[in-house]
Amino acid sequence: MKGNVVVGQSGGPTAVINSSLAGVFKNAMERGYNKVYGMRYGIQGFIDGQYIDLADYIKNDLDIELLKRTPSAYLGTCRYKLPGIHEDKTIYEKIFALLDELDIEVFVYIGGNDSMDTIKKLSDYALLTGARQKFIGCPKTIDNDLAITDHTPGFGSAAKYIATSTKEVIRDAMGFSYGKKNLTVMEIMGRNAGWLVGSTALAKGEDCDGPDMIYLPEVPFDLDKFSEKVEKLLEEKDVVVVAISEGIKTAEGKYICEFTAGSDSVDAFGHIQMTGAAAYLANMIHDKLGIKTRAVELSTLQRAASHLSSKVDIDEAFAVGGATIKAADDGCTGMMVVIDRVSDDPYQSTTSVFDVHRIANDEKVVPREWINEAGDNVTDEFINYAQPLIEGTLLPVMVGGVPRHLVLK
Amino acid sequence: MKGNVVVGQSGGPTAVINSSLAGVFKNAMERGYNKVYGMRYGIQGFIDGQYIDLADYIKNDLDIELLKRTPSAYLGTCRYKLPGIHEDKTIYEKIFALLDELDIEVFVYIGGNDSMDTIKKLSDYALLTGARQKFIGCPKTIDNDLAITDHTPGFGSAAKYIATSTKEVIRDAMGFSYGKKNLTVMEIMGRNAGWLVGSTALAKGEDCDGPDMIYLPEVPFDLDKFSEKVEKLLEEKDVVVVAISEGIKTAEGKYICEFTAGSDSVDAFGHIQMTGAAAYLANMIHDKLGIKTRAVELSTLQRAASHLSSKVDIDEAFAVGGATIKAADDGCTGMMVVIDRVSDDPYQSTTSVFDVHRIANDEKVVPREWINEAGDNVTDEFINYAQPLIEGTLLPVMVGGVPRHLVLK
Repeated sequence: MKGNVVVGQSGGPTAVINSSLAGVFKNAMERGYNKVYGMRYGIQGFIDGQYIDLADYIKNDLDIELLKRTPSAYLGTCRYKLPGIHEDKTIYEKIFALLDELDIEVFVYIGGNDSMDTIKKLSDYALLTGARQKFIGCPKTIDNDLAITDHTPGFGSAAKYIATSTKEVIRDAMGFSYGKKNLTVMEIMGRNAGWLVGSTALAKGEDCDGPDMIYLPEVPFDLDKFSEKVEKLLEEKDVVVVAISEGIKTAEGKYICEFTAGSDSVDAFGHIQMTGAAAYLANMIHDKLGIKTRAVELSTLQRAASHLSSKVDIDEAFAVGGATIKAADDGCTGMMVVIDRVSDDPYQSTTSVFDVHRIANDEKVVPREWINEAGDNVTDEFINYAQPLIEGTLLPVMVGGVPRHLVLK
Repeated sequence: MKGNVVVGQSGGPTAVINSSLAGVFKNAMERGYNKVYGMRYGIQGFIDGQYIDLADYIKNDLDIELLKRTPSAYLGTCRYKLPGIHEDKTIYEKIFALLDELDIEVFVYIGGNDSMDTIKKLSDYALLTGARQKFIGCPKTIDNDLAITDHTPGFGSAAKYIATSTKEVIRDAMGFSYGKKNLTVMEIMGRNAGWLVGSTALAKGEDCDGPDMIYLPEVPFDLDKFSEKVEKLLEEKDVVVVAISEGIKTAEGKYICEFTAGSDSVDAFGHIQMTGAAAYLANMIHDKLGIKTRAVELSTLQRAASHLSSKVDIDEAFAVGGATIKAADDGCTGMMVVIDRVSDDPYQSTTSVFDVHRIANDEKVVPREWINEAGDNVTDEFINYAQPLIEGTLLPVMVGGVPRHLVLK
């Protein structure tokens, strides 16, 4: 008889991280594991002995369906980096003692770059000490910045929410254009990688032109050029909508949001005011051209809006979760499940595994050739890549007019 | 044979204002009117001779269905207040000349308080001059602050979006609570009326406690009390989520967002920084307690997120649109269509008409008895009133992974 599995969630949550958890649980049960334990608040809580037996909480297939539709980390998450093995052995001894005590055979960690570092270190330690547990990473991040995998679960749903919201913001701006020109600057998450801001281009279709300009953090941002372009666009049309990454910076490496902080801007508490980059640019254009401008930040909802998850994303999140257990059964350890794209159109993907040492702590940015020459939009290659990932809808289960979630009480 | 109808949209758009437009168009066609003209950008564009024949653009039932799912004002909107009749007669002469020229029998205006003022003045002028046109108002505003009508189309969908987003933000905050307490302050639209911020309470259910506190603009806001309450709550629990109206102010009448402006806060352009009220409160608590805090503003999407419209709202918006034409056929003028609630459970409503003179320029706020004694939450009466209005979903028509809209080209 097989032993047990333990699974944790780590880093910033996504709309579909719980779909991966559901995939791990269901696949482990089907493959004959005895128990599936869930770490509370990732490895940080686990070290403190915080875990649950998932079967006590996920009782039937309806619970599985609700879990797939629940945003944020069902088990709780953490931002915790394990020390190097040579720095602090005792923490490893503690973790492995707990793993032995719980008869754990497979350790699954759902997360991004930092979380894969955890898988790397634990699998290294197991190798060094001959421990029997297998350590498998399950990719997750809205930022889509993990290496090797074609894309990460979480990205597609964030992109779908961002594209839909962008389209709605553009419609809203269009309604107000009579007799007055206006500029909207939308600020999108993604400090170093422009995958999310690039996906505002998916708003484009027969009924919408999409944003007029899109600025990714991969390309240095030129304030003067931006200002000139906006001015020129406003000569041709009344409504201009621009999308920027929160992480755009000048060629000198200064974040746009730091420009305000460079001034007298201190609030009542003495905080330096890091006005958002979008607010800064909107103010700048308002001052220069005297037109109505506004800044829109999509905020936390970019990672939490499971009411608008992508079906492709949620299914893949579930599949990579299941694939972690299969990988362990195949004898893998120190590996992450990756998504391989088989075809763009019709979109098809499969999963495989890859050495986590080549994934952890690496950061995949948007290739320069997927950004246009002027550095103010994405190319068709980007759209062909991202568009299939936002397809389809897994309808929320609505109770009382709002989506029902599965929560741990 | 009947003459023609002209319909306009005015004020801030909503997720369902176009459903009312669809209702006007469909009902007018069915009732044998010859043409339905649409004013571009409300009365302001109409005065300039900007209008279209809607039949050229809404060609079939699929277009009607798309229009019902399209946010913002399909025809374009304006914020334009007609002068008093005694102040400027020429503008009225111009409008009525155009109405005669277009053989208009019914003038429908979809909007809020200010728009009903337009209906009032035009119907008064028609009465004074014996003009034959009938003027009917069609209610619309996310703010739900129109008098006489039980509620306004647009409110239910905004409330559904706000309740759903609140639930997702709470889930997100809960995922991060291990070993550290955190506070989220959500800022919701509605400067004078607390209907929208109150609807964050609809996040509450078996799987969610809803916001810990809700502050409506109807009740003076006390910074010290707020701070004390947050501190007390954080002794009992790790995650606190508070919803505030953008319009909360102290007993002395000072808006919370003005507090920052009172300090040295000037940005690089010399703008006084009106940091949002939520950001101010989040900073204040962070400074006082040293815990992690964040501010979330739902922004424009509160009125534009038609991807999450309420079915009840969209159906009622369509119904009040149609009822304007019936009202005109019944001989009404200077009236607004209102929604009458027949029953809470099961929810049932009908439409009737009411004298616009008693509606225009009035503002309906949340009754004090629907707010708890402490002034930091809504009562069950509020929930019983608002909950039926967010029920049901009219699925978006998804094309390429995003909702398809009907747009005027």
